[in-house]
Amino acid sequence: MKIRAVTPIITESFGPLILEEFARVARPGTEISNVFLDSGPASVESAYDEALATPDVIAQVRRAEREGIDAVIINCMGDPGLEAAREVVSIPVIGPCEASMHVAAMLGHKFSVLAVLDRIIPEFEDKARKYGLQDKLASVRSMDLPVLELEKGREQFVARAVDRAVEAIEEDGAHVIVLGCTGLAGLARRVEDALRQKGYDVPVVDPASTALKMAETLVDLKLAHSKRTYPYPPEKEIVGYMQY
Amino acid sequence: MKIRAVTPIITESFGPLILEEFARVARPGTEISNVFLDSGPASVESAYDEALATPDVIAQVRRAEREGIDAVIINCMGDPGLEAAREVVSIPVIGPCEASMHVAAMLGHKFSVLAVLDRIIPEFEDKARKYGLQDKLASVRSMDLPVLELEKGREQFVARAVDRAVEAIEEDGAHVIVLGCTGLAGLARRVEDALRQKGYDVPVVDPASTALKMAETLVDLKLAHSKRTYPYPPEKEIVGYMQY
Amino acid sequence: MKIRAVTPIITESFGPLILEEFARVARPGTEISNVFLDSGPASVESAYDEALATPDVIAQVRRAEREGIDAVIINCMGDPGLEAAREVVSIPVIGPCEASMHVAAMLGHKFSVLAVLDRIIPEFEDKARKYGLQDKLASVRSMDLPVLELEKGREQFVARAVDRAVEAIEEDGAHVIVLGCTGLAGLARRVEDALRQKGYDVPVVDPASTALKMAETLVDLKLAHSKRTYPYPPEKEIVGYMQY
Amino acid sequence: MKIRAVTPIITESFGPLILEEFARVARPGTEISNVFLDSGPASVESAYDEALATPDVIAQVRRAEREGIDAVIINCMGDPGLEAAREVVSIPVIGPCEASMHVAAMLGHKFSVLAVLDRIIPEFEDKARKYGLQDKLASVRSMDLPVLELEKGREQFVARAVDRAVEAIEEDGAHVIVLGCTGLAGLARRVEDALRQKGYDVPVVDPASTALKMAETLVDLKLAHSKRTYPYPPEKEIVGYMQY
Amino acid sequence: MKIRAVTPIITESFGPLILEEFARVARPGTEISNVFLDSGPASVESAYDEALATPDVIAQVRRAEREGIDAVIINCMGDPGLEAAREVVSIPVIGPCEASMHVAAMLGHKFSVLAVLDRIIPEFEDKARKYGLQDKLASVRSMDLPVLELEKGREQFVARAVDRAVEAIEEDGAHVIVLGCTGLAGLARRVEDALRQKGYDVPVVDPASTALKMAETLVDLKLAHSKRTYPYPPEKEIVGYMQY
Amino acid sequence: MKIRAVTPIITESFGPLILEEFARVARPGTEISNVFLDSGPASVESAYDEALATPDVIAQVRRAEREGIDAVIINCMGDPGLEAAREVVSIPVIGPCEASMHVAAMLGHKFSVLAVLDRIIPEFEDKARKYGLQDKLASVRSMDLPVLELEKGREQFVARAVDRAVEAIEEDGAHVIVLGCTGLAGLARRVEDALRQKGYDVPVVDPASTALKMAETLVDLKLAHSKRTYPYPPEKEIVGYMQY
Repeated sequence: MKIRAVTPIITESFGPLILEEFARVARPGTEISNVFLDSGPASVESAYDEALATPDVIAQVRRAEREGIDAVIINCMGDPGLEAAREVVSIPVIGPCEASMHVAAMLGHKFSVLAVLDRIIPEFEDKARKYGLQDKLASVRSMDLPVLELEKGREQFVARAVDRAVEAIEEDGAHVIVLGCTGLAGLARRVEDALRQKGYDVPVVDPASTALKMAETLVDLKLAHSKRTYPYPPEKEIVGYMQY
Repeated sequence: MKIRAVTPIITESFGPLILEEFARVARPGTEISNVFLDSGPASVESAYDEALATPDVIAQVRRAEREGIDAVIINCMGDPGLEAAREVVSIPVIGPCEASMHVAAMLGHKFSVLAVLDRIIPEFEDKARKYGLQDKLASVRSMDLPVLELEKGREQFVARAVDRAVEAIEEDGAHVIVLGCTGLAGLARRVEDALRQKGYDVPVVDPASTALKMAETLVDLKLAHSKRTYPYPPEKEIVGYMQY
Repeated sequence: MKIRAVTPIITESFGPLILEEFARVARPGTEISNVFLDSGPASVESAYDEALATPDVIAQVRRAEREGIDAVIINCMGDPGLEAAREVVSIPVIGPCEASMHVAAMLGHKFSVLAVLDRIIPEFEDKARKYGLQDKLASVRSMDLPVLELEKGREQFVARAVDRAVEAIEEDGAHVIVLGCTGLAGLARRVEDALRQKGYDVPVVDPASTALKMAETLVDLKLAHSKRTYPYPPEKEIVGYMQY
Repeated sequence: MKIRAVTPIITESFGPLILEEFARVARPGTEISNVFLDSGPASVESAYDEALATPDVIAQVRRAEREGIDAVIINCMGDPGLEAAREVVSIPVIGPCEASMHVAAMLGHKFSVLAVLDRIIPEFEDKARKYGLQDKLASVRSMDLPVLELEKGREQFVARAVDRAVEAIEEDGAHVIVLGCTGLAGLARRVEDALRQKGYDVPVVDPASTALKMAETLVDLKLAHSKRTYPYPPEKEIVGYMQY
Repeated sequence: MKIRAVTPIITESFGPLILEEFARVARPGTEISNVFLDSGPASVESAYDEALATPDVIAQVRRAEREGIDAVIINCMGDPGLEAAREVVSIPVIGPCEASMHVAAMLGHKFSVLAVLDRIIPEFEDKARKYGLQDKLASVRSMDLPVLELEKGREQFVARAVDRAVEAIEEDGAHVIVLGCTGLAGLARRVEDALRQKGYDVPVVDPASTALKMAETLVDLKLAHSKRTYPYPPEKEIVGYMQY
Repeated sequence: MKIRAVTPIITESFGPLILEEFARVARPGTEISNVFLDSGPASVESAYDEALATPDVIAQVRRAEREGIDAVIINCMGDPGLEAAREVVSIPVIGPCEASMHVAAMLGHKFSVLAVLDRIIPEFEDKARKYGLQDKLASVRSMDLPVLELEKGREQFVARAVDRAVEAIEEDGAHVIVLGCTGLAGLARRVEDALRQKGYDVPVVDPASTALKMAETLVDLKLAHSKRTYPYPPEKEIVGYMQY
């Protein structure tokens, strides 16, 4: 099975890390490749960033299908371009936010998401609502750390994630924690361990690896997204982008 | 007061019609201008179309603010790029779908939206949900007429809209009707009259003119969208688009 | 266009203030008049007050239509008699609570209402629910100042409103503030400025002027409330009130 | 225990019937009295009727408490004046709509209400929502029979109620039926029997007798409505009505 | 009328207390009996305890109907086996949690439940949701006192209940309090008095006595649970339990 | 990885079929075993059946953990004993209903469940609600075929499933179909193919195989259910069952 991650940024320095983390949870026989964007932002932290990442995400998803890929992961917690990408192909296209919220909902009474920035809180609340999970969302709390600082070292995130997770558990009633950035791949078990040492026995969901397992699941089950929800776009004149 | 419509398509033949319809409902002293896109689709009928319209919508909204415009209308019922556009400026940016759904919600118990195509039904349901109005939405029904056929003559739409509206009233409990395309501007009163002749005394909301009145309202009230919801995007490297 | 405010109290000392505030936001050509009640309470602060204001509100709304008025505002945040008044006429009847909650919902992720008294908190929660907006309501907070003290000087309200607004923003996630009393007309911009100086860039919605703009909007759009939701009452014997 | 029904109409011909029906279900030791209004409508079929019934309902409820009554029933499915009446006394005030919807919610998966008129459908939907029961409401269906025709003979209602109940069961998934008018008191068992003969084994809830049992329940349990929700109204000048 | 309490534990020392409390609120002519389980747990504090109580609850409910009992109360706030028990008989089967939540919902704006243990909080939230009352639930707070300590003396519960109730009122907006354990029968009035002395005038609902009154209400009204929701189970081979 | 299916019935003739179907979708290296119950019903079609299956389900799940199993599937669409079983172990326990509803929610706008019997419709609606997915549920429709007839031949189910699926798509707006019984394992692709031939391009979710993939996913991700939601039961005396 061939899975393609489309990491919707132009910052290629994240590359080896991404593949390493995916390899850790992949099943034998799953081949994972990753592409970055040619056009788009250095990181995704706003609706504006998502909007400018989306056209090239769509192009990369289409290319993946043409290359015989079995399923695509849009490797960002903002799930940028998810609907549009599902329209243009017939293979599964996985959003880490959607996948990790649903898995979190199955793991306990309510979950909280740890956002990298305050400004993303409304977006995660909106996404929980859109994915039908608002009643399972305990809260969204911000770790207040810009994404690009992840390149400098991700250790600082563990401590902040643990602090915010404890608040979410104690004050908001969270029973499950979702890390709110695919750039945190690989840190979930460490956050979970640190929480357990503080007496909080709650699962911590990593969105990137969860998306990968969901991609494998759909391919093994021969399931793809409904074409009644995501029909192919009507053909028409389009200026400035390659026609679909 | 200066209002700018950004019509998020490249099909300029709609131009005179749009301005004529806006002029009909504008207050004295409101100057309305309209721009089309340089890059984007011929019409907006899919998430894919919306995605490819959005980058240029953002650019046009930014330009409007630089030109001293007081408020912008993204002149399409899909509200493409609404959040991103609100992030990059501090003037009000109005979405006809959001504005017309809220006005419809104030006019009666429940409203139905008449979509141009079957494929757009889930999007309107999602938007009602996102705008917090899902409990006021009676239904979405499709008129099954592609947008570009509007150029050929809009008369056929009146009869179809009336038929679908009657179904929405009788079967879904709609008390208010929203026309689901800004390209139908000017037809609302005719649909309303035809319904009244059939014994259905329900208001019919036109999204484009409703958006214009909402723009005037916000400017007169000196209100703009919350910068806590739509903060300016963080500065960063962006490839393939003008930097914000 | 002629707009009539029905201020549902017998305390006429508010009169000049009301007209002054409306004049500030009205469009050229809008004529605004205000009437008080012959029968009813000195202020509206309970379901009991609303109940005893309602019969004369209905009579005044009916009179307004007979006098050729184009739209009526029930000038109180409790929207007393809104449904009954809409039943007896065919012109738009605007409730400031309904209008300002919908406008607030469009301005940002979630809004909070500042009530004058603790006892009104449940009513605003119920109204948000009734108007279909409960998912957009962050909270209702009380300023703890009886309405009739407004006559003595409204300055004290600004400071209290700012304090409660900061709590709503910091603790409840409010991105928009609604002033919970039409007697506060004219103070919204001052509260907004004071919040901005404290670093909170959020819009503050004034219910009375918002209601006025919504009245103008409906008249310009030739829209009125649905007669399927608000049909004329059946004729019947009524004792103690003028028959409809 | 003394229970007072306040039947919020001026049509006294319903009197003996009401007392007879209450007596049928009352516990030994419950004394039931009924009063009609001095001012108000002949029947309650609109928000307008409810508004004009409410001031005298409040006065009658206050009088009942002064006379040593233990609990009051506002004997109409519209629950007119329920909040205001609860504010002015400290004895329980029961609304048949609220009581019967809650009992219906306990009897099965979902319930439907049979309204006397089409125009009341939105009101019952709003009330289910207000009482927190919208997710238990399968539908509201209209029997299309004006209330005052009940005086002429109530037999015709049984057949219509059965027909609408069958539709509610088959098409809307109703598992419990609520009769939507207290004027139908005494017919619930007959509708239930007729449904059983057609193969539908569903409980049919009569609102008036359910309200009586709820009144007895609260008195026996020494419970009254929360004064945090229904605090006494602030004293103030009121013109045209006796001061509270 | 004969009411049977099935107390779903094997700890018979609670027996006299239970009957004494029921007798206090029963109507004249109501005969109340209580049975404990032959198989099951010493107390009910987990889904595991509920699961192991359920088979014998079902058997006891069936036996009650065979013995001519008019209605059964499953005398535990977890309502264990409620659906299954309703399937196997045609007499009413009352759950104290369901009954007390609905009565609480009628008494004020929102209610809070005081759970005996932290671990039961999610269950009460789930039950409010299942019973359709999630929007009326202000919060669930834990008193942190294991059920079996009730045998040693229930005085300590009053103080803890009062403390948690004050928090629920002040921090969560509760207007009504529900005691979260039928083992607390008889303490509601004392908690209510203590709250009143602290200035909190809120009703406190006792689940066991509320369940009893609901049982009487349904028997008097000749209502039972809908057989469309709770049809008799299909006959089939069952190993390890008496066949139904 | 070792996965254990606990099929909560005593009808062992389903055994080979179950293992065959699981083997079809399992990843290399996944060992699957299946056990039936010693005590319980021949099939699960009621709350009563679920209640009597649950004690032995719990025992089997505990045994599985002692035997070194990595994750357990309760192999029935009713998810009987799911909460209690999760309490007694620390390995993941998967419910096919929960897993398949969440996967269906990710595949399209709304999903419908095809129940084997009319009587199970309310249970699936309740479960969607409990799992937080009620807004993604389009409808539940019954195929009206008792489970034990599956032994005689499952071909008849395909045609009925297709008919009900078409109704769900056309009348209820379903975009995804969930087969409502784990006894239908292996038929999903055939129903999907038949629907595609009729022009309906919608995914059909098989609950048993979906549960298996979710079990593998959680084991690979080293995730288990939250012990804050499912803490170990307190130790206490239990009569009639092995102590936990």
